[in-house]
Amino acid sequence: MSTPHPFDPLSPGEIVKAATIVRRELQGKDPNFRVITLKEPPKREMISFLDGGHRDQTHPRPVRAARVQVTIRGDSCPNEMVELIVNLDSGLIIKKEHLVGKHPYIDSAYMQAAEKACRADPRVEAEIQSLKLPDGAKVVVEPWAYATDGMNDMSARTTMCWFYMRLVDHPDANYYAYPLDLCAEVSEDLQVTRIYHLPSSEDERIRKDARPYDHSKVHPTALSEYHPDLRPPPRTTTKPYQVIQPEGPSFSVEGNLLSWEKWSMRVGFNYREGLTLHDIRYEGRSLFYRLSLAEMFVPYGDPRTPYPRKGAFDLGNDGAGMNANNLRLGCDCLGLIKYFDGWHNTAGGEPLKLPNVVCCHEQDDGILWKHTNHRTQNAVVTRSRILVLQTIITVSNYEYIFAFHFSQDASIHYEVRATGILSTAPINNDHVGYGTVVAPGVLAPYHQHLFSLRIDPAIDGHANSLQVEESHAMPINDPDVHNPLGVGYTTQSKIITTEGGLDLDFASNRTFKIINEGKVNPITGTPVGFKLLPCYSQMLLAHPQSYHARRSEFGSHAVWVTRYQDDELFPSGQHTMQSLGGEGISSTIESRKGDVAASGVRNEDIVVWHTFGSTHNPRIEDWPVMPSEKMIVGLKPVNFFTGNPGLDVAVSTQEQNQSVLVGDETGCKTGVCPRL
Amino acid sequence: MSTPHPFDPLSPGEIVKAATIVRRELQGKDPNFRVITLKEPPKREMISFLDGGHRDQTHPRPVRAARVQVTIRGDSCPNEMVELIVNLDSGLIIKKEHLVGKHPYIDSAYMQAAEKACRADPRVEAEIQSLKLPDGAKVVVEPWAYATDGMNDMSARTTMCWFYMRLVDHPDANYYAYPLDLCAEVSEDLQVTRIYHLPSSEDERIRKDARPYDHSKVHPTALSEYHPDLRPPPRTTTKPYQVIQPEGPSFSVEGNLLSWEKWSMRVGFNYREGLTLHDIRYEGRSLFYRLSLAEMFVPYGDPRTPYPRKGAFDLGNDGAGMNANNLRLGCDCLGLIKYFDGWHNTAGGEPLKLPNVVCCHEQDDGILWKHTNHRTQNAVVTRSRILVLQTIITVSNYEYIFAFHFSQDASIHYEVRATGILSTAPINNDHVGYGTVVAPGVLAPYHQHLFSLRIDPAIDGHANSLQVEESHAMPINDPDVHNPLGVGYTTQSKIITTEGGLDLDFASNRTFKIINEGKVNPITGTPVGFKLLPCYSQMLLAHPQSYHARRSEFGSHAVWVTRYQDDELFPSGQHTMQSLGGEGISSTIESRKGDVAASGVRNEDIVVWHTFGSTHNPRIEDWPVMPSEKMIVGLKPVNFFTGNPGLDVAVSTQEQNQSVLVGDETGCKTGVCPRL
Repeated sequence: MSTPHPFDPLSPGEIVKAATIVRRELQGKDPNFRVITLKEPPKREMISFLDGGHRDQTHPRPVRAARVQVTIRGDSCPNEMVELIVNLDSGLIIKKEHLVGKHPYIDSAYMQAAEKACRADPRVEAEIQSLKLPDGAKVVVEPWAYATDGMNDMSARTTMCWFYMRLVDHPDANYYAYPLDLCAEVSEDLQVTRIYHLPSSEDERIRKDARPYDHSKVHPTALSEYHPDLRPPPRTTTKPYQVIQPEGPSFSVEGNLLSWEKWSMRVGFNYREGLTLHDIRYEGRSLFYRLSLAEMFVPYGDPRTPYPRKGAFDLGNDGAGMNANNLRLGCDCLGLIKYFDGWHNTAGGEPLKLPNVVCCHEQDDGILWKHTNHRTQNAVVTRSRILVLQTIITVSNYEYIFAFHFSQDASIHYEVRATGILSTAPINNDHVGYGTVVAPGVLAPYHQHLFSLRIDPAIDGHANSLQVEESHAMPINDPDVHNPLGVGYTTQSKIITTEGGLDLDFASNRTFKIINEGKVNPITGTPVGFKLLPCYSQMLLAHPQSYHARRSEFGSHAVWVTRYQDDELFPSGQHTMQSLGGEGISSTIESRKGDVAASGVRNEDIVVWHTFGSTHNPRIEDWPVMPSEKMIVGLKPVNFFTGNPGLDVAVSTQEQNQSVLVGDETGCKTGVCPRL
Repeated sequence: MSTPHPFDPLSPGEIVKAATIVRRELQGKDPNFRVITLKEPPKREMISFLDGGHRDQTHPRPVRAARVQVTIRGDSCPNEMVELIVNLDSGLIIKKEHLVGKHPYIDSAYMQAAEKACRADPRVEAEIQSLKLPDGAKVVVEPWAYATDGMNDMSARTTMCWFYMRLVDHPDANYYAYPLDLCAEVSEDLQVTRIYHLPSSEDERIRKDARPYDHSKVHPTALSEYHPDLRPPPRTTTKPYQVIQPEGPSFSVEGNLLSWEKWSMRVGFNYREGLTLHDIRYEGRSLFYRLSLAEMFVPYGDPRTPYPRKGAFDLGNDGAGMNANNLRLGCDCLGLIKYFDGWHNTAGGEPLKLPNVVCCHEQDDGILWKHTNHRTQNAVVTRSRILVLQTIITVSNYEYIFAFHFSQDASIHYEVRATGILSTAPINNDHVGYGTVVAPGVLAPYHQHLFSLRIDPAIDGHANSLQVEESHAMPINDPDVHNPLGVGYTTQSKIITTEGGLDLDFASNRTFKIINEGKVNPITGTPVGFKLLPCYSQMLLAHPQSYHARRSEFGSHAVWVTRYQDDELFPSGQHTMQSLGGEGISSTIESRKGDVAASGVRNEDIVVWHTFGSTHNPRIEDWPVMPSEKMIVGLKPVNFFTGNPGLDVAVSTQEQNQSVLVGDETGCKTGVCPRL
């Protein structure tokens, strides 16, 4: 086995080793292994390794370490969380901490037990009976992590179970089409502690009385099913479309080191963030130390109890890595595909393979650049090739497709697509102000998807600054300003000196540049940098005093800048399950406020976090399965190079691209067209 | 010859016929034919035709008419513009108007004459001599239409000539890399009326004295050339990437009627707007009567004379159709390509073919929708196919790539890519507040690109309204509002009743919906509609009193709504060449203000105009040719259908898609990979 690179995820053997060490440490405690993952080395050591160790194998390697989270039956708590940091080189425990009152991410085995507990509860059964469901209905219980609303004691887990039914006898029937007027709260020890009847019109609140299911809400499957078994035959008009690369891919992979065109980077993966990217370089020049999706928060906007308990931290609570799809050739990705596997662990501490969680492939992206000299009519055109690293996660009803796109012009785009099925609630014939009726009796409630993209820059080194530039009209009647015809405009910029949150403003063309003030572009005379192309989005709507706001924190500003600290990876805090708030990015910033040595962000190792997303007030076109909704963030060089980095891309030729003419002249309308 | 559809552009025969009629009308005047184009029928007649005539051939057809613009030697003006509307069915002139003080779009033959006049002028020659250019330098004169700055009499054309040099003896050498300190103004009668020495540092103004060229600004071609003849060999790492469609395209074309998946539309083309789309339907349901790029304005932000004269109306002055590229198979488009030709006319009134001005092809666009049932682990995934209609224009130094993307989920995206070469100005060793130094002695000035997308909706009919919806947090301590936990939010909407300009606001998730209040969605209970996904952009920076603002008008608001009027197609007015202002969208709205019958926009035939673009403060990476800068606008159904319109797209299969696995296990890293 070759020596792993310090950024490599833990190998199966390392997972076994970490578990063995922890099991020995916790003798007799029967640990439930929730996490065995790489503890990334301190950046201080990594910088030294990357700068020296890249070339010089005699350079000391950072210690290889694992972060392990287990739950054990504690003295006072049936589900006590212990976190251990294990030195895999020495076999020693570096740190061991009992995290009282914290919960690890969702335990799917436990959730299934909660579901079963619900079904086994005679009161729940009686409630189901009183709904007088249609013949053949099969009840489905969907357990959700409890979003703190201040009404329950937090020391123990609470699970919210939502009820649906399947009317069609098929395992993939869309039960979200039949939300039931029932909801149960399940305690840590798997007891049903409360049953709710859900509000069903604008003025209604939770009720004591059951209300029988309204059989007029039963509707044709064509309105609500997405599975092809349950649908009419699909359209047949879409002809096959295939991508061939006769000389193979333009990328190469050695272990987790990915090289493509002038890019290099290391591909990482963990249970929580899913895909992570490390040490991203272009022509060997350092750009980013680490890029990752750091958190996601999906709060629902219906104010009526118990709906405020719907607010999902899809990374902190669920795990983007844990829920990453096993991607399929020809389905999730088109063309020549390289897959990366992930490794997690079982409850017993054995390695668990997560196959094909990341796919890597190239795409044609239209025209990279073109110019026609109007004097000669000579056109020069190059096509744009991009490298795509894609991962897809399923979080209960929803899917998210996350993709990094690398371009030949040295830009990076991060694309999020939201798809999947809307989380639904029952409704009568009324309309409410917090949702859309997407099928008879089915309310798709308003909600938000807020993402935090963590950008850990290393723009030509680690001392970076965040510069905010705006474009402003010059005054027209100021005797000190030469603007006689009123057309002048100029830029104004400032460099952020202390940690904090900032907002977007397209009206002033506000631009966020990550620059290295110590490296001046020899031609422009300005610091080298990369700019953020933000995704303009509404921020969190929940009131700042609400649990949603206090727990998520990152949703109040579009751009955050912080001083780099090891292990500060998550803008809503390390442990989001039933968190009480005050552990996220704004709290961290507040805690360092005034401590200039710790909070200065000018010419320092900084991290930039971009909050973006969508206020998703569903439309019926999102039902029964939602067409992908794209959100795109970009990072582009700005006076970093000495010219267009894609200038040396070869011009496009028909000889290479083998396109085919369609037209009357070839008689080719529907058949195979001859190549010209 | 078959009867043309009323939306079909004029055929060559019709162009000949129109010219013949006009020549007869203007006997002895020796007209210079600038425009012979379709005059689209009155919408009133077209609605009747489309509703009835689609099916019923006995329905009366609208009159076939041509709009003709000629210049003639007038009594007082050497270049008098006459516009004629010709009835091609009867051969009669419907309308004839002498447009005093107006100018047609740029006459390239005249521009070449202006260029020659400059070179022939002995004062200009003396100025060039005094520049003491390097040996072998070839001077290039770039004539620009004069952007009104109030300093010249407008009754005659003025041309601004900018000077550059080529140092490399190659016809495609990038002369923008060597802007010279010289500028000449040329009069209508081709006399050089003024010579400027350009300001070259922040505080400098135009000067009397010439300043010799600073030979230290001569730099290696690798920094400034884009043509492959003048560049080092290109990178060879990009492997071929081909698209094959073994069963042919999924679209079909009959004349200008294009059908694809459930879409149908008619493809139009004219000298000014270039590509236009008409009668866009999905499953036969009417969505848009007409979609087009209506105007573009590119004002430069340098306040120093004569730079305020740089402000280009790329449609009104140059013509997106006139300047449309002849697209090449395998270069501009990849895969199976159908091309459309355009027709224009010569100065003599003969038909002039503009070949391959529009390409039509399909693209794979990643995943359309996906869901994995977490209970069964069954994944259903469909890939998204899009239909692309692309046209590319060259306007002097710049290129714009315009593409409509039609999706299987009934959404439309309009993508603009800006590429080409920056317009440059000379600079000394100074830095100025209105530009970026991109090469020694080369200033790329700040400028804006503002586009106006004209959306003429017909959402299930022609009586439409514009609804503005926002998402707002509910108050937290209002006793009349039930929001105990502070998480509630709801939407507020209003319907616009009178014409005007509106602004974007992502902070309130402000959404613009074009709705048909007369057609209520049977499930959601709300009016059917389409929403605009805007491109968030800074509006025009030039002062409202400036000529730039007064001439362009549309740049002051992101969304405009007007009442439909035949021939109201251009938001900066019909004639933009040297216009004085007051002819654009806001003036039109102002002129109808108070006249409720003419300006009401609720339940009326309305037009929505979206202003978007970029404040382009160049980065050196845009030099010497700019990587495409994408701007995207979307139109999506919102409660128009009764579910996801792409639900019936067949699931993706490897059998159809024939993807190829790359990996160690197949030993396939660089060679041809076996299909699995």
